[in-house]
Order: sequence, then structure tokens, then C-alpha cells
Amino acid sequence: MPQPELLEIFPNPHPGRDYEIRMTCPEFTSLCPLGGIESDATELALLKGGAPDFGTIEITYVPDQSCIELKSLKLYLWSYRNDGIFYERAVNRILDDITARLAPRWIEVVGDFNVRGGIKSVVTARAGTKGP
Amino acid sequence: MPQPELLEIFPNPHPGRDYEIRMTCPEFTSLCPLGGIESDATELALLKGGAPDFGTIEITYVPDQSCIELKSLKLYLWSYRNDGIFYERAVNRILDDITARLAPRWIEVVGDFNVRGGIKSVVTARAGTKGP
Amino acid sequence: MPQPELLEIFPNPHPGRDYEIRMTCPEFTSLCPLGGIESDATELALLKGGAPDFGTIEITYVPDQSCIELKSLKLYLWSYRNDGIFYERAVNRILDDITARLAPRWIEVVGDFNVRGGIKSVVTARAGTKGP
Amino acid sequence: MPQPELLEIFPNPHPGRDYEIRMTCPEFTSLCPLGGIESDATELALLKGGAPDFGTIEITYVPDQSCIELKSLKLYLWSYRNDGIFYERAVNRILDDITARLAPRWIEVVGDFNVRGGIKSVVTARAGTKGP
Amino acid sequence: MPQPELLEIFPNPHPGRDYEIRMTCPEFTSLCPLGGIESDATELALLKGGAPDFGTIEITYVPDQSCIELKSLKLYLWSYRNDGIFYERAVNRILDDITARLAPRWIEVVGDFNVRGGIKSVVTARAGTKGP
Amino acid sequence: MPQPELLEIFPNPHPGRDYEIRMTCPEFTSLCPLGGIESDATELALLKGGAPDFGTIEITYVPDQSCIELKSLKLYLWSYRNDGIFYERAVNRILDDITARLAPRWIEVVGDFNVRGGIKSVVTARAGTKGP
Amino acid sequence: MPQPELLEIFPNPHPGRDYEIRMTCPEFTSLCPLGGIESDATELALLKGGAPDFGTIEITYVPDQSCIELKSLKLYLWSYRNDGIFYERAVNRILDDITARLAPRWIEVVGDFNVRGGIKSVVTARAGTKGP
Amino acid sequence: MPQPELLEIFPNPHPGRDYEIRMTCPEFTSLCPLGGIESDATELALLKGGAPDFGTIEITYVPDQSCIELKSLKLYLWSYRNDGIFYERAVNRILDDITARLAPRWIEVVGDFNVRGGIKSVVTARAGTKGP
Amino acid sequence: MPQPELLEIFPNPHPGRDYEIRMTCPEFTSLCPLGGIESDATELALLKGGAPDFGTIEITYVPDQSCIELKSLKLYLWSYRNDGIFYERAVNRILDDITARLAPRWIEVVGDFNVRGGIKSVVTARAGTKGP
Amino acid sequence: MPQPELLEIFPNPHPGRDYEIRMTCPEFTSLCPLGGIESDATELALLKGGAPDFGTIEITYVPDQSCIELKSLKLYLWSYRNDGIFYERAVNRILDDITARLAPRWIEVVGDFNVRGGIKSVVTARAGTKGP
Repeated sequence: MPQPELLEIFPNPHPGRDYEIRMTCPEFTSLCPLGGIESDATELALLKGGAPDFGTIEITYVPDQSCIELKSLKLYLWSYRNDGIFYERAVNRILDDITARLAPRWIEVVGDFNVRGGIKSVVTARAGTKGP
Repeated sequence: MPQPELLEIFPNPHPGRDYEIRMTCPEFTSLCPLGGIESDATELALLKGGAPDFGTIEITYVPDQSCIELKSLKLYLWSYRNDGIFYERAVNRILDDITARLAPRWIEVVGDFNVRGGIKSVVTARAGTKGP
Repeated sequence: MPQPELLEIFPNPHPGRDYEIRMTCPEFTSLCPLGGIESDATELALLKGGAPDFGTIEITYVPDQSCIELKSLKLYLWSYRNDGIFYERAVNRILDDITARLAPRWIEVVGDFNVRGGIKSVVTARAGTKGP
Repeated sequence: MPQPELLEIFPNPHPGRDYEIRMTCPEFTSLCPLGGIESDATELALLKGGAPDFGTIEITYVPDQSCIELKSLKLYLWSYRNDGIFYERAVNRILDDITARLAPRWIEVVGDFNVRGGIKSVVTARAGTKGP
Repeated sequence: MPQPELLEIFPNPHPGRDYEIRMTCPEFTSLCPLGGIESDATELALLKGGAPDFGTIEITYVPDQSCIELKSLKLYLWSYRNDGIFYERAVNRILDDITARLAPRWIEVVGDFNVRGGIKSVVTARAGTKGP
Repeated sequence: MPQPELLEIFPNPHPGRDYEIRMTCPEFTSLCPLGGIESDATELALLKGGAPDFGTIEITYVPDQSCIELKSLKLYLWSYRNDGIFYERAVNRILDDITARLAPRWIEVVGDFNVRGGIKSVVTARAGTKGP
Repeated sequence: MPQPELLEIFPNPHPGRDYEIRMTCPEFTSLCPLGGIESDATELALLKGGAPDFGTIEITYVPDQSCIELKSLKLYLWSYRNDGIFYERAVNRILDDITARLAPRWIEVVGDFNVRGGIKSVVTARAGTKGP
Repeated sequence: MPQPELLEIFPNPHPGRDYEIRMTCPEFTSLCPLGGIESDATELALLKGGAPDFGTIEITYVPDQSCIELKSLKLYLWSYRNDGIFYERAVNRILDDITARLAPRWIEVVGDFNVRGGIKSVVTARAGTKGP
Repeated sequence: MPQPELLEIFPNPHPGRDYEIRMTCPEFTSLCPLGGIESDATELALLKGGAPDFGTIEITYVPDQSCIELKSLKLYLWSYRNDGIFYERAVNRILDDITARLAPRWIEVVGDFNVRGGIKSVVTARAGTKGP
Repeated sequence: MPQPELLEIFPNPHPGRDYEIRMTCPEFTSLCPLGGIESDATELALLKGGAPDFGTIEITYVPDQSCIELKSLKLYLWSYRNDGIFYERAVNRILDDITARLAPRWIEVVGDFNVRGGIKSVVTARAGTKGP
């Protein structure tokens, strides 16, 4: 299960300036709650869970008082490994979890997921406002 | 014949937020109603239909109350396989069919078709309005 | 000589919507009226015309009542093959010829020509207005 | 069903020389006999056949007395469109059909098929002997 | 734990010919038994296992009497997901498991693993002999 | 019509050494004698010849007493512009014409032609022997 | 330790015009103050400092009265080589040091750092205002 | 020394329309007045001038009454070959020289220079106003 | 100074088989003993050493009784960071140090160094014999 | 005029081993003795020499007792800047000059020259023998 309590922050070294931080993790993996577009019941019984999904998570934010600690972000994203979750929900949940911990001025989360059933999916969500 | 009744939806897990979903299918194929720019009558008689067209369909939308179920989208796009349809009509029809079923806040459909007669074609249509 | 009478149109299948069609022809060739930057008089005498130019023509438009028929566009572009014409004039002429036949809401023609004398040239012209 | 009778040949214009001809078709499509790794029974019922497969077929040969006529090769490859066939069988069958009709000195057929179930497949078969 | 019993085979449709089959899985993931080059004890305690490794497994073989069934290969590779194993051992084990089940004429397994500690690793093992 | 008399040579500046010269012309164009895979009779009547073919010609050779003069090669390749010729014949003819004029120790001609009917063709011919 | 006193400037040759200068250094390296996401205490004792970080620094500015002397910028960036500093602080410090010395009309500094712990980081900061 | 008198113009074939012309020369070379970031006094004595600089010059403009003649632009850019000039001054001078001769509605000159001292430089200057 | 004592090994998990391991480190950096092709005495005085060199080290080997432990290789390569060494000597030294510790059946070290003075260098050395 | 006396060598640090060094210079430029395929007499009068040629020179060798000093190679290649020389002669001359100074066990020189008259040229020469 996703563990938002793993996320750690440190003080923004330059809070007086609007600047951007982008962190890209090409090794995101979770499970599809229903086995996904490409699996049937026999396969799921074998796996005792859903079929694995793979993708890249890209997080861009304008920090306010805090920055995300990189190692803790890695651990937080690892916590989806054996969790069954849809693409749309995963991206919105990552956005909500980080926003709750970090309170950034602006944030965007992009989930770029591998081809399933011959179709590739990209989900993009944002919160906050960019400075003028 | 295209079968819009194959399209299924599920409730948007985060309807309070404007966010984007992009689904890209590089395996779209249909037939050209007149045999197409590269075929003559003899060929068409053999095929009992038009010459095959190939392309990539990219669908981007901002969901309102619903999201497209990925497997059903795959089946819907497969239903063009033995249908004779022009590029311009195919892209507009996909846009109309999905809009009718999904009622998204905003949607764009891009059909990027393979070279025929030394010419490559891309058709792009949109409906709805993007949030501010 | 360019033959605009080769251009054929068909009725726009969705005239109620602003949408874009892009057709890209990477096999455009014409002759340079003066032999071009890379040829001298002896060569031109041999060729009984100018040196060959090569390039890609990309045509993007928003249709109004009509669309360009793809096969006729191919033939129209072939009609430049043995015609001597400068880059700037060719792009503007293609724009004028198609506009006269098609009356699109908006149109752009890009001519991306191969290196001559170590210099690459791209000419871009537009007509009409894009919808809001 | 594959129609090898569509294949036509013409006399090799230079039979005294060992030389190679490579023809690449990136628009090959067939059906998977069992619905494939990514489909279940419900989907197959809808499609009245198997799930579509897509790939690139690359044929390289050293001609002896004959060459393959390009248009007839196109029609022959089209004849797999609604046929259910496994990758391994398709590649070996194309090799056998062309060899029977063409009697080349040497031939290689490569089938490079799109990702299914997160796995990409390439099948390569050869017949005959290359000259020293 | 890797489950070689998941691997299924089907009869080679053309056993009289030496030909090659290559299957590439870019979604391989396992765990590092000691947490790996980039993790410390605190992280491992959180994960109740090792740090995740990611890579691409490419399997090429010349079939003898049997071919690997694609869906079963997918399930077999999934069975490494929560298993702790070093790169060198994983590649050799996949080679041994498939060889035991398939008895190919020749086989090669390449594991191309993602950067860890600023260093990328590729392990390549082979068994059997290629025909002349 | 191809004009081999345009080809000029100059003395090899280093005849005592086996070395290679490769000249690549990405702007080769000719006509297809029958209009080609993508044209019908109406089109051909308009063009008073065949449909245009496009490709890249790559010539590699080990000179003996002479080298090809670059400008004359350009003119020679231009002389195919309005000539109807099949791919296989064009490549073999270029090989024969250059060999007759140049008498190289070894030569290879590759014709890499653009997609026609969804199929790309590459023809490769060689003459002479490479030094040990 | 970073040495801003190494930075040298020269008079802007065209102060009457708003124009942009972009300098990209793909060879930036510094140390991570805590050893970084991928190192433990044993490693750091060996290195008598932190683990090395690598990245590309891209500086874009609109000059006012002065331009940065390229050689002095190289030396200034070298001065981070054995300094322990976080990504966020490094980018903001480079921006501040150059701004203090150069007083540009507008400036942007992008630090694009290599993957650590499977995550890539890019930090972007700006100062000043771009002309209308 | 740069020779702006080499620049020649011809009448714009379509002065009634705002359109763009882009000319890219990847073979620009000049000398660095002080020998440059990578050379010392001994080298410069050998060269009787500065160290060579290399780059790509890209010129984009909206013509008014005239267009630049391509061959004359080639000669003008050649005239920098043995001239010692800084990047910033070269780009602004090319902009000034062409503007003086051509009087375009809008013009942009980009100088993209090769790596020196591990740093790549790009200088971009503009003049005039783009139509609405 | 390079510290070969940092290199650690572990038992080869499959010593009965000839297989290959390739490890690529794109973050190698050292100093040039004389300041390098691009620096003068003033710069070197500032740096109290030579100018930094950057490159990628690729190590491929066939293990005998042992494999290199990945983390220890990372530390060993870090130990060149503040060492002055020429390209040719660095590659041969890495080969000698690893061979002394590992005793592989075959090994190759490639050092691919960044552009200096407009010239890129690659040094490749090998030891041992590859199995038949 | 090319100045082979600029070439300097230093002792091979590992003469007991056959290993390779490759140096690639993408900034080679010379003049064409006759003005070249793309220039006429008027241009040449302006330039008081031939038209400029550009290319990449790649030198690979197995050292015997000596290695080429990198800075001296840069200066030697610069000495072709204002020299009129054909491609074939330039590559053979570089091979001869370096061989005379360096006496390598084996050496290859590749000159990869930019497009002239729509044709790209690559010249490759070798001397000596590679070890078994």
C-alpha cells in the first residue's frame, strides 16, 4: 500500500525565489487491480494480485517553504510496488500525497505508462498556481 | 463497421480536478472505401473491399464524470479493421463516438496515417473547452 | 509547368467543426531556373534546363466546405518536376493554387529544401485565419 | 487465408551476377488464432476471430532467374489480414511460399512483431546458400 | 521465487529448418538480495526485502522440437518480481530454466539492467551450438 | 536516358594502396516504366511517362588507376531523372556503367528506394574483389 | 569551495539590443554533502567527503553592459569539483554569483543532474525580466 | 574581414504577404581574436592568427521588398573564415549587415557554436517586428 | 591516487559456463597531469592540479572463478577523481588493476573521453582469450 | 600547407600490449583546389583560393613505441585550413604523415566530408597489420 508517511522534506534553501524542481522516476511499477487489459483469471490466481504495470513518474514543483528529500521520494514510489491501483487514481494520489506533505506553490505529476493492449497511456494532473 | 456500443466508461476517480488523459494506439487499421490512392480495380476485386490504411490514433481528454475503460477502447478501435472509411471521416467519427459516450470537458483526436502515394496525412479534431 | 487544374476536392465530411488536416510530401522536386547555386553553364546545357532541387512540402489547413483529394494533390506536386522555379515563388504559388481551388478557413505551406552550397532553406507562408 | 497464387515474378535483369534485393513491409497484420496473449473469450466473440497482430516483414533474397513483382508481394501480404496464424508459422510460411514461386539462390524472412503482454518477438528464417 | 513450472511449450511448426526466435521483455524486475548498491539497512527494513532492480531480458533461440509459449514466458518472468537475486545469477538461471524445459538447439539470454550507483550492467550467457 | 559518357575520371593519387571511397547521393530520382505500383493509366497519361521514383544511391569502391570525378557523377545520376527504369535494372546499370569507365579493384552499388505500396526496397550489387 | 571571484566579464559589444547568450556545460561535478542517496558511511570515510554528483549546467542570459568571459566561467564551474552542495542550493548559488558579477537584464540557470537512486533531477531558477 | 558588399538581393516575389524564410549554414568558421579558450601563445604564433571556431548560423526573416540571394549569402559567410571575431560580435554583425542590405520586416540570427573548454555557446539576436 | 585495494570480488555463480558481463560507468573523471590540451599555467595554479577530464569507462569480461562486486568498482573508479593521468595510461591501468584482482578469462576496457581541443578520444585495451 | 613537422609523439605507456586509440576531429576544414563542385570562377576570384570543404577526420591506430600527442594533432589538422587539396589526397596524406612520425603497428584514417553537389563522400585508408 502507498505509504505517504515515508515522504520527508527539508527547508527550501532559497524560499524568496520562484524556481522549479523536476524529479523523474522511470522505474515506477504497481499492479492493476483487475489484472489489467492483458490478463485473465488464471494468471491472476498465480500472482495472487493483479498484473504488473510499469511507467515513468515525473514530478515538477515550485517549492514554497520545503523541498522533497530525494531518497524518501524513492522509498515512497517503491511503496506502490505490490499495490493494485488504476493509472488515473495513482497519478492523482501521488499528487495529493506530495501536496499534503510539501505544500508547494505549484505542482504537476505526469504518469507515462507502458503499452497495454496495444495502447499507451499518459495521465497529467496539476495543483496550485504558477507565479506570474 | 465501427461499433461505438463497445465503448465502456468508469467513474472519474478525481472529478474535482481538471487533469488530462492521453491514450495512443499505434495499431489502428481500416480500409479505404475506394481502394485508395495506391490500388486499382483488379486489386480491389481480390480483396473484396478497399486497400488497407494504417495509422496511429491519439486521444487526449479532460474527464468530467467518467473515464474511458482502456480495454473497451481497444475493442472499439479494432471495429474499424474491415470498415471502409476516409481519414477525415474516421477522426471526426471517433471524436463524436467518444464524446457521446464519455461527455468529457475537452477532447482531441489525432489520426496520424502512414504514407500513401508518397504523402503522409495527419488529421486533428477537438471538442469542448479546456479549463483556464 | 505547375498544373493547378489537376487539384480535385471533395465535400468536407464535418463542415460544422474547425479541424486540421496536414499532408506532407517528402518527394517534391523541381528545377532551379538559373541552374542554381551549385551548377555552371556546361552542366545546364547538358540538362536542357536547370539543376534539380529537392525538398519536402508540408500543407496544413482547416477545411471549410471542401477537402483536397489526396491523389490529385500528388499529381499536382508532380507537375513541378520539370519546371524551373525559385523556392520562395514555389511555396507562395502552391499556397495560392490550393487556396483558389479549396477556399480553406486557414492554410499554411512549408517548403523544406535540401542543402545547396552548404546552406539549407525553409520557406513558410500562410493565408486565412485560425478559429479562436 | 494466405494466397500464394497472388505472387508474381519477372525475369531477373542481371542473372549473371549475385546481388541482393531487400523488401520491407511495415504494415503487416494478421489475427492470432487463439485470441492471443492479451484477449479473452468475450473479446474474441465480438471479433469473430482472433485478436489482431501487427509487425514488419523484411524479405531479403539473391535472385536466380526471377525477381518478385512488388505489387503482387503487397497483395500477397495483404492476404494474411483476416487469417489466424502464429508468428513462427507466418514467417516460415512466407519463406516457403516465396521460395516455391521464386526459386531464389538465397532468401531470408524476418518478422518483427509488436509488443504483446509486454514482450516483443522477432522471428528469422533462411533458405538456400549465399555465394562465396 | 522464480517458478520454472510456469513455462509452457508448443510443437515447433517447422522443425526441419534452423531459424531464430527473439523475445524481448523490457519490464523485468526483481529485488537485490542485499538491498543493492544504492540502499542502506533502514530502507530495507521498510521494504521487508531488497531494493528493486529493473532491466530488459532478451531471449534468442533456435528451436528444436518445441517453441516457448509467449504468455507462459510472461508469467515466468513475472515470478521474479519479489525474488532477491543478483544479475549474474538471474541471467544464468533464466538460461537454465528455459533450456531444461525447451531443449533448444541454441539459446542466448541477455539481461540489460538499469543504472545503479552510476554504473549500468549487461550480462550475456549462451548454451548449445548454432548450425553451420 | 542514362548518359554514361558524362562520367569523368582522374588519376588515383595513391595507386599503391588499397583504400575505399564512398559517395552517397540521397537525391536520386527516375521514373517507373509502367507507372509503378501506385499509379493508374489516367495518371500516366497526364505525366507522359511513368510515376516518379525516389531513392538514395550509395557507391563504394576501391580505386585502381582512377577515381570518379564527383561533379561528373552528379551529372550522370541526374541523367536518370526522366528515364523509365526498374530498381533492379537501375542498380545493375549504374554498377556496369561506372565499372566500364573506372575499372575499380572492387565496387558496390546500393539503391535504397522510398516506400511504394507500403513496401520499401533496397537493391545491392557488387563487382571485383576486395584485397586481403 | 565555489570561487565567484574567478568570474570575469567583458563589455557587451551591442548593449543597445536585447539578445540572448546560452552557455551549456555538460561536465559539471560536485560532491553530495551527506554522501547522497546512493552511499553509506563506509564509502564516505574512504572518500573523505561526499559521493560525486554529475550534471549539465545551462546558463542563458540577456546581457546589459557586460558579457561573461567563457574561460572564466569554465574555471568558476570547476571550483565546485570538491565542494559538498545540494542540487537546489548549487543552482541558486550559480544564479546568485553570476548575477552579482554580471548584472544581466535576465538570466536562467538549469541544472540537469544524473540519475541517483533511479531518479533524475532538474532544477531551474531565473532572475530579472525579459524585454517585451 | 567580413565583406557585407558580397550580399546580393532580389525582389520579393510575393511582397503582399507576411511569410518566413530560414537559411541554415552548418559550415560557419572564423578565428578567435585571442586564440580562444583552448589555445596558448605558441599555438597562435604558428597559426599567425587565432584558433579556429566552428558553428552553425541560422538566419530567419520575413522579407519586405527583397530576399537574400542564396549564393551571395554563402560568399558573405565565407568571408569570416580568416577573421578574428568573438561569438557575440559575430552574431550581432551578421544581423546588422543583412538588415542594412535587406531591410526585412523581421529577422533573427542564431549562432550555435561548437564546444570550447567543455562549454557550448549559442547566441541569438533579433530585429524588427513580426506581423500580428 | 587510484586505489586498486578497493576492488572486491565474489564467487562466480556459474563458473562452468563462458558468459559475459559488461559494466558501463558514464561518470568517470580524472585530472590531466599537465593541465591538458585546453588549459594554461594560470588556470592550473588556481586548481592546484590539472584540468579535469571526463569520460565513460566500459568494462566487459568473461568471469573465471570470480565476479567484480559492483559497489566496489564504483569506489575504485571514484579514486581517479583527483588523480593526474593520461587517457592511454588510465585505460591500461584499469585493465591491469582489475585483471590482477579478478583473473578473468577475457577482459576489455574502453575509455571514451569527452572532446578536448575539438578532438574526441577513445582508447580500447584487451587481455586474455575468448572461448571458441 | 599541411605541416607534418607539427606532429609530436610521446612514449607508449604500455608497449607490451596491442591496444587501440581512436581520435575523432569533427572540425576539419580545407579548400578545394579547383573551387569545388559548387563554385564558379567569380567566387574563386573573390576568395583568392578554392571553396571551403568541411568534414570529420577519424584516426584509429595500434601504437608501437609511441603515441600521438593530442594538442600537436590538433595543430597539424589546423594546418590544412587554407590549403587546397582533394579528399582522396588529404586522407592518404594524413595517413602518410602520421605513419612517418609515429610508426604505429596499424592505422586507419577516415575522412567523412560534407555534402557537395548533393553527394556525400567518405574516404578510408589503412596501413600496417592488426595483431591476431
